[in-house]
Amino acid sequence: MDQFIYKTRPDGLSVLNLQKIDERIGIAANLLAQYSPEEILVVSRRENGWKAVRQFGKLTGAKVFAGRYPPGILTNPQLENFIEVKIILVTDSWPDRNAIKDALQVGIPVIALCDTNNQTNNIDLVVPCNNKGKKSLGLIFYILTREYMKKRGLIKDEKEFKPSLDDFTEE
Amino acid sequence: MDQFIYKTRPDGLSVLNLQKIDERIGIAANLLAQYSPEEILVVSRRENGWKAVRQFGKLTGAKVFAGRYPPGILTNPQLENFIEVKIILVTDSWPDRNAIKDALQVGIPVIALCDTNNQTNNIDLVVPCNNKGKKSLGLIFYILTREYMKKRGLIKDEKEFKPSLDDFTEE
Repeated sequence: MDQFIYKTRPDGLSVLNLQKIDERIGIAANLLAQYSPEEILVVSRRENGWKAVRQFGKLTGAKVFAGRYPPGILTNPQLENFIEVKIILVTDSWPDRNAIKDALQVGIPVIALCDTNNQTNNIDLVVPCNNKGKKSLGLIFYILTREYMKKRGLIKDEKEFKPSLDDFTEE
Repeated sequence: MDQFIYKTRPDGLSVLNLQKIDERIGIAANLLAQYSPEEILVVSRRENGWKAVRQFGKLTGAKVFAGRYPPGILTNPQLENFIEVKIILVTDSWPDRNAIKDALQVGIPVIALCDTNNQTNNIDLVVPCNNKGKKSLGLIFYILTREYMKKRGLIKDEKEFKPSLDDFTEE
């Protein structure tokens, strides 16, 4: 994640480059907008992301796993809950590593929110951000949802986007 | 580039993973298709890429620099040849490093064709491939052109795509 770090403070905390965060959220939204909602799977094992990803799913229609990712769901057609998607978005490359592994196996692109501590192997597009906190994840998915809906023509402009940031963060 | 390498032969040659090449070309085409042609800049300092990128520019309408990248062209509005684009695609991150540096400064996404020897810093989307040979570059841009035109609705399907692979490789 070196290339996204603005500086590392004397106490060891690495600070992300804000411009890169902004740019990458834009790229991620652009890429997602190339897929219809049912072709997208969003995964968040970490509880702080549940509210945010569920809202994303509710508003866009994308498939969502908030909680444990059922193993083999992308790779084993024998399973009852087998699904086929064309792109996945995970909130953290470490807790969501099984989803990334499956995506790699079926050969679909992986977008991952990554903090300064994350490994970026096998990820096609890294979105640098704080992926631990409720508010941070809420804000990221608020923007992703709005941009996705705009680019897909589900809303005409930002004014038509009714949900508030609280809908993505508050329980 | 570790994550794209299938194996390294005893003689030291690293072989790319074909599945990843295919997947990444698809992602690159999807991402490019979010931009209109005049928002795209393609750069190839290496001569073996000239024919390929010029064909891409001719068919899609994207801006192209085949040869020396004029410094400051993206960053200095005082220059006569100043242009504004929203995404750039370079054929090799090393010879085209000035273009990447400028893109970083103005904050636009960078797609780069990268071989096993390339550094991937500051690149938003890596497309692993042989980026040294005429035929390889020709093929990559042939596919990128076709997919871009298809996704932008410039052609209806693959049958409508008339140029031959030779148009991208032969001098």
